[in-house]
Amino acid sequence: MTLTRSLFSGLLLLSGSLFSLAQANSDSPSLTMMGTTPSVPKNIVIMIGDGMGPAYTSAYRYYKNNPDTEEVEQTVFDRLLVGSASTYPAKISGYVTDSAAAATALATGVKSYNGAVSVDTQKQPLTTIMEKAKQLGLATGVAVTSQINHATPAAFLTHNESRRNYDEIANSFLNTDTDVMLGGGQRYFPPKLLKKFEAKGYQHISDFAQLDTVTEPKVIGLFADIQLPWAINDKDAHKLSKMTSKALELLSQNQDGFVLLVEGSLIDWAGHNNDIVTAMAEMDEFANAIEVVEQYVRQHKDTLMVVTADHNTGGLSIGANGEYIWKTDIINGVSNSPDAIASLALADGDWQSQVNAKLGFELSPEEAIQLSLARMQGVEVMTTAIKKIIDLRSYTGWTTGGHTGVDVQVFTSGPASTLFNGYQDNTDIANKLMSLLPKKPKVASKPKAIAPATSKSAATKPAAAPSLEAQPLQIKPVVIKSEKSKSMATKAIATPELKEPSSDTVTLGKPI
Amino acid sequence: MTLTRSLFSGLLLLSGSLFSLAQANSDSPSLTMMGTTPSVPKNIVIMIGDGMGPAYTSAYRYYKNNPDTEEVEQTVFDRLLVGSASTYPAKISGYVTDSAAAATALATGVKSYNGAVSVDTQKQPLTTIMEKAKQLGLATGVAVTSQINHATPAAFLTHNESRRNYDEIANSFLNTDTDVMLGGGQRYFPPKLLKKFEAKGYQHISDFAQLDTVTEPKVIGLFADIQLPWAINDKDAHKLSKMTSKALELLSQNQDGFVLLVEGSLIDWAGHNNDIVTAMAEMDEFANAIEVVEQYVRQHKDTLMVVTADHNTGGLSIGANGEYIWKTDIINGVSNSPDAIASLALADGDWQSQVNAKLGFELSPEEAIQLSLARMQGVEVMTTAIKKIIDLRSYTGWTTGGHTGVDVQVFTSGPASTLFNGYQDNTDIANKLMSLLPKKPKVASKPKAIAPATSKSAATKPAAAPSLEAQPLQIKPVVIKSEKSKSMATKAIATPELKEPSSDTVTLGKPI
Repeated sequence: MTLTRSLFSGLLLLSGSLFSLAQANSDSPSLTMMGTTPSVPKNIVIMIGDGMGPAYTSAYRYYKNNPDTEEVEQTVFDRLLVGSASTYPAKISGYVTDSAAAATALATGVKSYNGAVSVDTQKQPLTTIMEKAKQLGLATGVAVTSQINHATPAAFLTHNESRRNYDEIANSFLNTDTDVMLGGGQRYFPPKLLKKFEAKGYQHISDFAQLDTVTEPKVIGLFADIQLPWAINDKDAHKLSKMTSKALELLSQNQDGFVLLVEGSLIDWAGHNNDIVTAMAEMDEFANAIEVVEQYVRQHKDTLMVVTADHNTGGLSIGANGEYIWKTDIINGVSNSPDAIASLALADGDWQSQVNAKLGFELSPEEAIQLSLARMQGVEVMTTAIKKIIDLRSYTGWTTGGHTGVDVQVFTSGPASTLFNGYQDNTDIANKLMSLLPKKPKVASKPKAIAPATSKSAATKPAAAPSLEAQPLQIKPVVIKSEKSKSMATKAIATPELKEPSSDTVTLGKPI
Repeated sequence: MTLTRSLFSGLLLLSGSLFSLAQANSDSPSLTMMGTTPSVPKNIVIMIGDGMGPAYTSAYRYYKNNPDTEEVEQTVFDRLLVGSASTYPAKISGYVTDSAAAATALATGVKSYNGAVSVDTQKQPLTTIMEKAKQLGLATGVAVTSQINHATPAAFLTHNESRRNYDEIANSFLNTDTDVMLGGGQRYFPPKLLKKFEAKGYQHISDFAQLDTVTEPKVIGLFADIQLPWAINDKDAHKLSKMTSKALELLSQNQDGFVLLVEGSLIDWAGHNNDIVTAMAEMDEFANAIEVVEQYVRQHKDTLMVVTADHNTGGLSIGANGEYIWKTDIINGVSNSPDAIASLALADGDWQSQVNAKLGFELSPEEAIQLSLARMQGVEVMTTAIKKIIDLRSYTGWTTGGHTGVDVQVFTSGPASTLFNGYQDNTDIANKLMSLLPKKPKVASKPKAIAPATSKSAATKPAAAPSLEAQPLQIKPVVIKSEKSKSMATKAIATPELKEPSSDTVTLGKPI
């Protein structure tokens, strides 16, 4: 029996390798349609749960658990877990990363200082996986619940010495040739800038209902002033799932493949707020989007998905204050975010019954007094007081309003997914992903345009473009403006082969 | 190149399978001596870092990092990581486990209530991997830094309705036929009980220096009244490594293999105390023991090691209070445990210079005043005040003096180690390990005696004993005494085939 099984596995592996090779050489679509997984993906979906440390995925399992069954049900995270990743930034920033340095590591394979947007510790630009993909004729996209120019998507798409230079980052997106950009951030894209995007062939939408009507790239969809609404206050909207689904639909029109970044951005924001009910709803929003991609990967065996977090936020713990308890019924019973409940309470004289209804439990006399006092001090103090009551009743713990340095988990499915098994550094994830990109662009593909869905000529032509390993890429100038000096400096996007700054690059000063 | 590599992998897998089959069928020692890993282990080493949640292993990496190099050095945990495990107990106890329920899950593959020592929620005994191993002629042992009758080793060796019944648990060890027991707990093994162990052929030692002189099982070594000294106060003693090394030496004398449990017990105790410097030193103690086993596995390719934690303790976070900092220099600079420093300070009039020297930094005027006030309230308050200063200076966070529900990590090496890849429940770990035990005992092996090192006859004889799957095991009566009632009840050790209580078992009441 052992022999039979082992021999069978061995033969499967051999036959799989042969199929993979055939796939890699002929690009025959029939093989993936037959259900055979190639050894190297054509498409890559990178999914980042911002701030989603290991306590979040464990907590989510219990939050989602059906209390009517004896078993604890598994989640999508349990199905896909393969390893973990360390998140520490460049030495100058110690052991606890911010989202910008972490996204730089995940997008470029190089560690940098906290605040860096895909520039190194000398503030020189680092080639991102999105830039490399573009050079190779792949389509690229981002779908996030924060503003699209927030640290994580920014580090995948552009370069800046500081994540805080939101306007510069938004402006620089014009030159990235990204095919799909979906998320929030209207305030950073004024009409004048949007006209420039339109001049470059982008469709611009701002009403979420318009998303259904989009049928081809390029598109920039901005659905909120800054971040999208909390999922808990926008029930059944499933906006991240819908944006992910649309991005997959649009990007898959490119015959040569695509790289898509999806971020559950607001897990981190809820974590910073030490807000367990909002965090769990954002986890659910992200988990649903992961399931959309999981389904896509099942149907498209040439697509690799890699899910991870950039870091842990808040020092969340399942259980607190000495008790071996975590009461998910309390958390599941709250129907709006604490800040929304606080706003409601401040607007209404009969606030207590409203708060009871939204919390899903009756305030004790002591809790009512606490909230009554907090209410007189405004919405922020009221919000904090509500969160404290939920934490105490549910036995949820927090240690910080910032980030912590625990390793995050790695979840994968699709071709080459076992590359990510076990422990790795966050830079290793980027380097592995970049190693899976094609070695050279297709000749027939225009480097910066997506082939229309009807064109199938590119896929069958032999690749004859020069190898990226052998020859340096074209350098495209990108403008990086320092927020402080307001001076302009023309900088080069360096490829991995061009890490030494070229003569026309300018060092903007010391790392912040 | 892809083809060559894949073909080569496939052939390697095939040849590996053939070798494995040969090994499984012939038990030829020559194959493992040739460096070939069999598909099924002969020996299993289970290592538990009590309370060692993911923040502990990440923290340990930074604690051990050489600040003089640009890189962050990997640890033994990084080398061996393969997956993670959920730790929740039986439904009746919610989502946060205690050490007893967790050890029950890891030892038996069945979840039970918090406090249970390898009994189910009906207080019926559950077969442990150690019992199964014994029935199959394998040797068994435990090496721990707590008392040997503490929750974790207890659940591997015996059964009790409550982990708190320390005396009953100690007494019951007499009937377990365990070959090697090393750790603390002298107070639970009075001379009268030790005489009974000696009558059963055990060598008893209580001086750690005697350990070197032990050359064969059986041995019971109790080196402290309760737990062993904190590693930070017992520098260069490496007691867990030495106990582990000796256990491996003694157990490997059994031709039919062995199962060894090693526990870094005091990581949890330091976590309960929210004591980061003591916790990191205990992590180092455990990591060194893991390296001893890792080295053994390299030299003995028939040995599987599985390292995990039973749960997370304390809600430790790397970074706290809003800052993106974790200062390992502070933690590394403290040369004794805070409780030892507090005791020293209370015994000495010139306490402040002593405390400064032990902490490795100069107390600020404010800190000196805080400690001065604390000192007047006794050693406990002084200890807490010292820990608080270390936490604030190092940016270490805690949420609880108890446990938390985050998943723990799984680390493996050796035959069948990939079985543990990805996510699993803690019960899955036990069930996988039990599935790796031989299906039937060797005929020539006496079920309860270790074959002497010189006897090699057993290894070559064909196995002809009845299959465990086909026939029920012999039931050996075990005494379980309730602490409250002091009544005695004769109970049966149920095998997995005998989960229904037999007629001579007694249900002791409702779960606690």
